Formats: sequence, structure tokens, C-alpha cells
Amino acid sequence: MMSDSTPRIGIAMGSESDLPVMKDCAELLDEFELSYEMRVLSAHRTPAAMKEYAETAHERGIKVIIAGAGGAAHLPGMIAASTPLPVLGVPVKTSKLNGLDSLLSIVQMPGGVPVGSLAINGAKNAALLAVQILATADPDLMGRMLEYKQKLIKKVNDMDERVRQHSSL
Amino acid sequence: MMSDSTPRIGIAMGSESDLPVMKDCAELLDEFELSYEMRVLSAHRTPAAMKEYAETAHERGIKVIIAGAGGAAHLPGMIAASTPLPVLGVPVKTSKLNGLDSLLSIVQMPGGVPVGSLAINGAKNAALLAVQILATADPDLMGRMLEYKQKLIKKVNDMDERVRQHSSL
Amino acid sequence: MMSDSTPRIGIAMGSESDLPVMKDCAELLDEFELSYEMRVLSAHRTPAAMKEYAETAHERGIKVIIAGAGGAAHLPGMIAASTPLPVLGVPVKTSKLNGLDSLLSIVQMPGGVPVGSLAINGAKNAALLAVQILATADPDLMGRMLEYKQKLIKKVNDMDERVRQHSSL
Amino acid sequence: MMSDSTPRIGIAMGSESDLPVMKDCAELLDEFELSYEMRVLSAHRTPAAMKEYAETAHERGIKVIIAGAGGAAHLPGMIAASTPLPVLGVPVKTSKLNGLDSLLSIVQMPGGVPVGSLAINGAKNAALLAVQILATADPDLMGRMLEYKQKLIKKVNDMDERVRQHSSL
Amino acid sequence: MMSDSTPRIGIAMGSESDLPVMKDCAELLDEFELSYEMRVLSAHRTPAAMKEYAETAHERGIKVIIAGAGGAAHLPGMIAASTPLPVLGVPVKTSKLNGLDSLLSIVQMPGGVPVGSLAINGAKNAALLAVQILATADPDLMGRMLEYKQKLIKKVNDMDERVRQHSSL
Amino acid sequence: MMSDSTPRIGIAMGSESDLPVMKDCAELLDEFELSYEMRVLSAHRTPAAMKEYAETAHERGIKVIIAGAGGAAHLPGMIAASTPLPVLGVPVKTSKLNGLDSLLSIVQMPGGVPVGSLAINGAKNAALLAVQILATADPDLMGRMLEYKQKLIKKVNDMDERVRQHSSL
Amino acid sequence: MMSDSTPRIGIAMGSESDLPVMKDCAELLDEFELSYEMRVLSAHRTPAAMKEYAETAHERGIKVIIAGAGGAAHLPGMIAASTPLPVLGVPVKTSKLNGLDSLLSIVQMPGGVPVGSLAINGAKNAALLAVQILATADPDLMGRMLEYKQKLIKKVNDMDERVRQHSSL
Amino acid sequence: MMSDSTPRIGIAMGSESDLPVMKDCAELLDEFELSYEMRVLSAHRTPAAMKEYAETAHERGIKVIIAGAGGAAHLPGMIAASTPLPVLGVPVKTSKLNGLDSLLSIVQMPGGVPVGSLAINGAKNAALLAVQILATADPDLMGRMLEYKQKLIKKVNDMDERVRQHSSL
Repeated sequence: MMSDSTPRIGIAMGSESDLPVMKDCAELLDEFELSYEMRVLSAHRTPAAMKEYAETAHERGIKVIIAGAGGAAHLPGMIAASTPLPVLGVPVKTSKLNGLDSLLSIVQMPGGVPVGSLAINGAKNAALLAVQILATADPDLMGRMLEYKQKLIKKVNDMDERVRQHSSL
Repeated sequence: MMSDSTPRIGIAMGSESDLPVMKDCAELLDEFELSYEMRVLSAHRTPAAMKEYAETAHERGIKVIIAGAGGAAHLPGMIAASTPLPVLGVPVKTSKLNGLDSLLSIVQMPGGVPVGSLAINGAKNAALLAVQILATADPDLMGRMLEYKQKLIKKVNDMDERVRQHSSL
Repeated sequence: MMSDSTPRIGIAMGSESDLPVMKDCAELLDEFELSYEMRVLSAHRTPAAMKEYAETAHERGIKVIIAGAGGAAHLPGMIAASTPLPVLGVPVKTSKLNGLDSLLSIVQMPGGVPVGSLAINGAKNAALLAVQILATADPDLMGRMLEYKQKLIKKVNDMDERVRQHSSL
Repeated sequence: MMSDSTPRIGIAMGSESDLPVMKDCAELLDEFELSYEMRVLSAHRTPAAMKEYAETAHERGIKVIIAGAGGAAHLPGMIAASTPLPVLGVPVKTSKLNGLDSLLSIVQMPGGVPVGSLAINGAKNAALLAVQILATADPDLMGRMLEYKQKLIKKVNDMDERVRQHSSL
Repeated sequence: MMSDSTPRIGIAMGSESDLPVMKDCAELLDEFELSYEMRVLSAHRTPAAMKEYAETAHERGIKVIIAGAGGAAHLPGMIAASTPLPVLGVPVKTSKLNGLDSLLSIVQMPGGVPVGSLAINGAKNAALLAVQILATADPDLMGRMLEYKQKLIKKVNDMDERVRQHSSL
Repeated sequence: MMSDSTPRIGIAMGSESDLPVMKDCAELLDEFELSYEMRVLSAHRTPAAMKEYAETAHERGIKVIIAGAGGAAHLPGMIAASTPLPVLGVPVKTSKLNGLDSLLSIVQMPGGVPVGSLAINGAKNAALLAVQILATADPDLMGRMLEYKQKLIKKVNDMDERVRQHSSL
Repeated sequence: MMSDSTPRIGIAMGSESDLPVMKDCAELLDEFELSYEMRVLSAHRTPAAMKEYAETAHERGIKVIIAGAGGAAHLPGMIAASTPLPVLGVPVKTSKLNGLDSLLSIVQMPGGVPVGSLAINGAKNAALLAVQILATADPDLMGRMLEYKQKLIKKVNDMDERVRQHSSL
Repeated sequence: MMSDSTPRIGIAMGSESDLPVMKDCAELLDEFELSYEMRVLSAHRTPAAMKEYAETAHERGIKVIIAGAGGAAHLPGMIAASTPLPVLGVPVKTSKLNGLDSLLSIVQMPGGVPVGSLAINGAKNAALLAVQILATADPDLMGRMLEYKQKLIKKVNDMDERVRQHSSL
């Protein structure tokens, strides 16, 4: 049912205009050498294609679906409606309400159909959470996740080194 | 394809718990002697039933669909995704964010797939707007709509009569 | 009472400064070859002209009124107060509160006088909802509405084609 | 044009349900022995009566109009549209959005048509501001206003006396 | 106690940086040929000067005080605390919370000490409301206020003329 | 390092007062027969215990951590800071800001340290998302997840059956 | 200038109705055996008394002033305007906007006049922060502060003990 | 335990990107000739370094800690969790929610662990509040604080001089 080349993570967005935000997912997953597929699937304009994608993703070997959308952001919730896989939502910042509309549309899901929401424009963290999810069954990936956290420490320490110079004498 | 008994207005809600709000639609439509059907269709829990309902409603003679939902209220938008009919949304008040989440989830639809949103818990007005929509092609109904507005005036005048008594002597 | 040249849709706005937003209505209606008239009618500055417009629109053959306004956006509600026609409101984005004030002023109408609100700056969708309303009594227009939805699918599929290229190898 | 018995202050509300809030105006004005009239005038349901009231109030001797309304609270702004008199708005608390909708609908008026908004449910202060407005041309009333402020001081001092007892020994 | 040259309206602001907003008051008052004085009085940085100004304004012939401030905008309320005159507040837009903080700080005054709040950056309307207040005791000014409203109608009609050209043929 | 009896899911809360919300997790996990441990760990009052829990959870066999907190809800983010495991956050409703403070404190995490946030009081969905995460590596659990979704359909269909009775004749 | 019996902490509130919230300060300070005085001082109704209190507090031996107020909560900022002492603000929850108005009125102070704001109704924490401020120059008090933190740990551990019982077997 | 060169104030920020805001602290403290150290300590990325800093600061002679952070701003609260010193929080403005998320994350702390929050981007005032805290035990510093307030008055008076020129003749 699933070939070796099947990507493990599905990244869906409601419109091509969300790509500048959602490509942060790709970048992070490349860093972890995890395979992914990127799709434009609109809950409102291509509901049939979206539904079919959601219903079959787990059969094709996808393990986690990340969905980003803005405004009345129904994509993450509607994918969650049709898949048994974990769905992570990325509220995309909007020019009108700054993404508060996107956030509430994504996070306030009813009991029975969860979406794990990340921060507004938090595509990178969505990918990282997907890595953590895969790592729960993959000790090697867990190891790389721990290394990633070490790299964060290193980066902050470097910033700290520079900012300390601003202390009074 | 459609019998005489086909209702002209579809009233959908995401859960039976929305009934206390959504039955205001029924009451108003009874007043205008317009036929309607009431359904629980969950965008998140019964996406297939919902989609089928939306796709076939116009073929069965439904003219307007009213959809009420709370929280991440995807029902109105997802019905709009699959029907050419006008869809009116009723944001149901929630115990947490008072319905602001429902309102934004319903009203902030992307270009191409409109939902006309009413006030939070505005089920009565949704039905009234449906009446106005049907009246655009039904002079008799238009006449009754004009009468309805006269009754509103009467009611306010009665209130005015009583409140004037509170004026200073 | 109404000549052949009477437009079927009235588009009102509170100020000429709303035109850049409201002309999206015109563009969409041109696509469907539906006639419309555009007016500046201020609830606050020309209340008499506005009231007269609202009271007589249905007698002149107008079927739906779209009204856009920003801030304390009273125009849609005040037109609804004086017409039996369906009124659709477009909350115009403001420089101060981003249109949240416009949205709440338009959508939170009291029982008895409905306004169907679209998204902030959602003028295109207001026109599309007007098309759907007219289509409830016009099978040909209904057919064109269904075609319109097919075009949306085509557009999203094109975007999907391009975005898929960003998938990992 | 105006008899001795003409009230000097008009108090309008959109519905009888606003009376429990708006009667705070009456109480305060009674304290200052100023005459007032109380009316239910609905911007949305009795627009003609409301407009006529607003247009003629200054000819009947009314000096200030106080208008209270909730939700899409158009009454203060629409009265201001048709009168040269100062209009004070009282945003009435709503069960859904706590009156934030009322406040924004009242206060965010466009240039040219001012409404002076008081706090949510601030009917007493609306009346007091009306007193201050009348006092600008009435030295005796100005004197009573100054006395009123002295009484406030007395009241706070009394509270202070009691609360000081809670200090540590 | 007051000379002929005493201005009738006091315009106070918390900082010189509010001048670009508050000078809209001056422009409007110039149009009505009403005298005014402009002051920087900071509730937080010059509380004594502010208090003295507020306490003595009515003795110097000032009839209305307009106060503009941003953020924790205490100036209008604190002036109201020390004067029997009507105080109008102008919430100045802030770069962080867009003036919502200013608005709530100004409008939510406790019972006994009213401030009439205008819209965010609504300095022009504050001046216009001051004109209306003075006009309650000045028939000539009332006449000019009525003329002003006629000019608004003329302006909107001109806009209407231009926008009508955008109607479909 | 981990015995057979090690629970697979950790449920942490900032205070015992969060238990009425967080026990919804337990109920859902019992339904799926998954083992879990429940802990009170306060980011602010027991930071050392919390940190130690977070640092060692993955070594003890915990696969997913669910953390619920209200107000300045730092617990989910601070656990995420010290574990490579996926962390799911439950914003607990507060009596003051209704949980909007909890939600923003949990969801707006910076890049590098993700928390997947559920709805306000969405403890049941947090547990369900944890089930979905475990199911990505457990075909049997995936099967039960699919069955769970079937039960949701059944429940909605039952509600639909009852609500249809409210349709007009 | 100051006797032995001079309290070290001043607790001011805008109205006696704030006492149920503000007495949490007293309770906490009693626990640390620190002296305090409690006062009702209204920025809006007794501005002179408030100003005098603020101007002289540091001369009487007061070290920290805690001020609580609701709505357009000007008291903390206005006390800060007239004292060189550190001022801590407690936004009191309001029945209309839940204290968001109080919070923004207190926290958004302009540069030059700081107020340290605590949580809505956070009177206990205001007192605790006052303890920490005094402890910066009082090693014994610092020791008691450290003990206090130990007691917090103990309390959380006790809750943890009880909640652990809810873990699965 | 502490040398002469130990700074008295610690300034921590979650990322180097907060430096443009937080250096306002340094500038103000330089004006008062008070020593300080500046650090990047991330609650989420370097929790161990942050915790160690917080636990030992009071032993090294630090008297007050100022912490600035944006979004899910956990740094001030987490430092407060591990130190007996007074902690002042600076909510840094974010590009998405304008710092409202930062503010609520910082200010809504639970009982027992206070953070005194300043305005969004209020770094200068945080430093000034730190000066006031140190001045409670340092009469000379108190004197300079009083002088600082005099300089504020001078600055406002200068602005007043200029703005008065805009008064009508």
C-alpha cells in the first residue's frame, strides 16, 4: 500500500499565497532529512480533493498532516474530520485581524476531532512537532531531536555573549 | 426531482446542543408559513453526510440553507463549499469566548465562497433574511414581509407608550 | 414601475473612500453580467437620501442591496431598517481597529432587522452571495454559479500543481 | 415654539429592555430637578419616528439628547445624524459581547457627526454630562454641579473612614 | 473674572506628540470662528499644572474642555475630576494597541465623573460636539451648526455623483 | 530503564484546581485503555520538580506529555523547553479573561520549542491527539481510532434523527 | 519625620467596593508581619486628597504604594505621578469588560512614570512584590521570602500527592 | 559573596532581537549611574542557564531583575519562579498580536509568584521602577528620583510653551 518513496509528512495549505509561511516547514524537515509532500487543498474551493486527501493519507504512509490556513481557517479542522492521523494547524497571519481569526478558527475545535494548533505563522514549529511525533517511535530521530535542542542552546549562548557587552562597566 | 412537500429552507446545526438557539428559525418560519427541514450535520464528525446534504440540497428544492455552529464553527463555510445556494451562518454563543470565536470562524470566509453571517445567536434573523431572499421572487411573500415590518413598528410604539410614563412631570 | 434597464442589485457605500473596496462587487457582477447601481449614501450625513433610497429600492426593481461601511458602520443596518429586501453588509477595514469595529457594528443587529455580514473587506463575496440569491429563482444563473465553482476548483488545482514541486524528492 | 413644560433633556432607548439601565438618567436628573422625557425609539424598527424625533427636538426646546442602545447600537449615531443638538451615547451591556459591540458601534463615529460616548451602562454619567452641558449657560446649575462634586468627596471620605480600620495596628 | 479675549474652549493634550491629531480641533473651531486655547498638560508628569488648569478653567470663561491622550490615557478623566465643565475625550491611536487602550482608559469612567468620549483620533468630532454644546445657548451658533450639516450633505452628494458613474450600463 | 508498568502518557497540570478540566484526559485514555500518569507540577512554584519531570520523561517511557494551565500558563511551554517529546497544551478557562490569556500564553511559542495547543478546556481532545500520535506507530491503535470516529458518526446520526422531528410538516 | 508606628506599605483603592479584592494584600502582609495602612482615595472624586497622600507618603516612611482600581483605573498612575516611591497596580475585575479595561488603563503608562501592574485581581501578588522590594534592603525579610517559596513547594507537592492517585493503574 | 563591581540590576531578554527595546533600560540606568548586566537567557531554549541565573542572582548582589520577552513570554515569570528578588516584566511588541500576547503571558501570574508588568515595550519605565525600588533604601537615589521628576515637568512645560502658540488669537 505504501512504497519507500512515500513521504511521511503531508503539508497542506489553503492557497498558494500561504506558501511563504508554509515553506518554513519544508526547511525544517530538510534539516532532519524527513520526506514530505506539499499540497494546495482548499476546504472551501476543492472540498472533494481535500476530503479524499485526508481520507487516504494514512493508507499512503503519511504519519502526520500539517495544515496552514488564514481567516475562517477551516482546512486543519476539515482534514482532521476525515483522517485518523494527528493534524497540526498553522494559523496564517491575515492582513485584517492579524491572524486572531485564523487562530480561533483552528484551535477551538469541538470534542472528538482534535487539531494541535501552533502559533500564528508557526510553520517551523509545526514541522518540529511533527518530528517529535515521529521520534516517539524512532530512537534515532529522538537522538537528532536532542541534538537540535543542543544547537538551540549554542545559538542562545552566542547571542548572550554579544549582549553581555552592553552591560555597564 | 422535487415534490410539493419539499421544504424550501434547510436548517443545519453542528450538534443537538445548538437546538435551543436554532429553533428560533423554526418559529419565525412558522409565522410566515414557510416549510423547512431541521438537521444535525457535523462538519467535523459527519463530514460525508454534511457534504452530501450540501451537494444535493438545491436539487431537492431547497432554496436557502441556514447553518448554526459554535467555537471553530466550520459548518456554514463547509456547506457553502459544496452548494450553489445562499448560505446564512448563525454563530452560536460559546461558554468560553462568548461566540467571538464562532463569529470569526463563520464570517471571515475567503473570496469565492460566501457565507452571510448573522449576529451571535441570531437564528431568528437568519430565518428572516431567508424570507427576504425568497420574497425577491415572490410578491406575496414580499407583501407579508412588509406587514411584518409594520408589526415591529406597532410593538415599538407600544413600548414607547409605556416608557413615556417615566418622563418627568 | 420598473423599466428593463433597472439594475437588479444596489451597491451603497458610506463614503467615496470605500470605493476601492466596494468596486470588487462591480467586477464580480460584471463577470456574471448582472446589472447594478453604485451609490454613496451616508447614514450619518445624508440620512434622508439614504432612507428614501432604502424605502423605494424594491419598487424600482432592485432585488438585493449590498452596503459597505467602516467604523461605526450604520449604513447596512439603517438600509435594512427601511427596506423589505435582503441586505448584505461589507465591514470596511479601518486604520484604527482593523475593521473589528465595522464588523461588530454591522453583524450584531437586533431581532427583526437582519443584515447578512460578509468578511472584513469581503465585497467580492457580497456580490457572489447576491448572485446566489438571484439564482434561487433563476435556473440559468444557478447554472452559471455552478460553473463558477468549477472555475474555483480549476484555479486551486493549478496552484496545487505548482506547490507540489516544493515537496521533498 | 416651546412651552414652559417642555423637557430640556431627551432620553431615548432602542427597546424597553434598556429601561433598567436608562432609568439611572432619570434618577440623576431628578436630583438636579431638570425636566426630561423618556422615549423608546428604534433606529432599526421605527426609523421614521426616530428621525422625526431627532429632526424636531431642538425646535421643541430639547437641549441635549441621551441615547442608549446595545449590540449594533445605531440609535445614538442615527439621532446625531438628524439633529444639531449634542448627543450622548450609552452603550448598553449585551449578554454576548459584554457591550464591547455596543461601545464600538457608538463611539467610532465618522468625522462630521459626533456622539459623545459614556462607559458601558454609564447612563448616570450621561445625565451628569447633560447637566454640565446645561450648566455652561446656567450659573445656578453650575453651582449645583460644584455642590454635587462636594457630595462625592464626602461619600469617598466616609468610605475612607471605614476602610482605614483595616490597616495593621 | 473673564475678559473678552478669554477663549471659550480649552484643548489639552498629554504630549506635544498628540498635536498632529489634536490640531484637527483647532481647524474645526476656526471654521466656526470660536476661540480656543491649546495646552500640553500631562496628568502623569505635570499633575499640579493640570489640576490647577482644570480647577480654574470655568472661572476664566472656558465652557468646554477637550482632552486628548494615548495609552493609559488619564488626562480627560483627571481633568473631569477637577472641573464642573463638560469634558470631551479624544483617545489617541497608539502604535502598540491601536488606541483600544486609550479608548478604554477614557470611556470607562466611574459614576459621578463623566467624560464624553469620541472615536479614536476623533479630534474633529470633539470640536464639533463642543460647538453643539455652546450652540445650546447660542441660537446664532445653532444656525451655523445647521448650515454645517447642509454642507456635509452637499459633499456626500458630490461623491455620490462621481460614484454613480461606476454603475453598470 | 522502563518497566512494563510505565505509563505512556504524562498528564501535568499547574494546580489541583485544574483537575476537573484535566480529568477529561483520563476518561478518554481509559476508553482507549492507554496508561497515563497524572501530576501537579507548577512551572512557577515547583520549577525544579517540573524541570526534572520534563527532562526524564522520555527516559522513563513516556511518549507524549499533556499539560494544562490557566492565566499566564507557562507549564506547557516550560515542559517543552526540557523534553524532546511532543507536548500538547490545554488552556484552562479563567474566571477573568475566559482563557484567552491561557490560550495566548500557550500557543504563541517561539520558533524551536513547539507546543500543540488544543481549545480552551480541550482536555479530551488533547488525549485524543495523544492517541493519534501513538497510533502513528501502532496499527492496532490506529484501528481503534478509526472505530472511534465511527462512533462519533453514530452519535451525530442519533441527534440528527431527533432533530429532524422539528422540521415543518 | 516618621515614628516607629508608621506603616511601611500604603494600600489605596478607588472605592470601598474594591475592598474584597484588596484585603488580600492585608492578609499576605500580616503573614510577613509588615505594617500597612489601607485607604480609599479616588483619583476622580477626591483628587486633592489622593494627590496629597501621594506627595507626602515617602516623607511619612511609606516605602511602597499598592493601588487597586477598576474600569478607567487611573488611581495607580495618578499616585505614581505624585510620588517618587515604587507604585504597584492591581487591576480590579469589572462586571462589563472583565478587567481588561482596568488592566490596560493601569499598565500602559507613558515613559517617565512607571506603574508595575499585577494580574487582574492580583492583590496578593502586589503585596508579595512589595515584600520582595522591602527585602532588597532587609536580609531577614529576604530569608522569610525564601521560606515562603519553600511553603509554596510544599503546598504543590501535597496537591501532587493527591492528584497522582488519578493515574491509571 | 559579592564584590564592589557586582551590578545591582539584572536585565534579561529572551533573544538578541529584543535588544533594541531592552537597551532603553541601559540608557535610563546610565542616567542614574546605576550598574547593570545585560543577558540573553531563553526560558524555552536555555532553561537551565536561565534557572541558574535566577537562583543565584540575589547571592551575587543583584537587587532587581528586569526581564523582557515577546509572544508566549515566559521569561519574566520563570525567573520569578526561581528568585526571591522583585522581577519586573517588559512585554515586547510582536508583529502578530502587537504584544497583547506578551502582556497577558507576563501579567496574569498566579498567586505566590508576582511579576510587576510594565507597558508593552516599556523598558525605560522598568528601569525607572527599578531605580525607585533601590531608592527605598537609598536616600541619595531618592533625591535623584525627585530631581528626575522635576526634569519631566520642565520638559512638559517646554512642550506646553510651544503648543500654546497654536491657540486662536
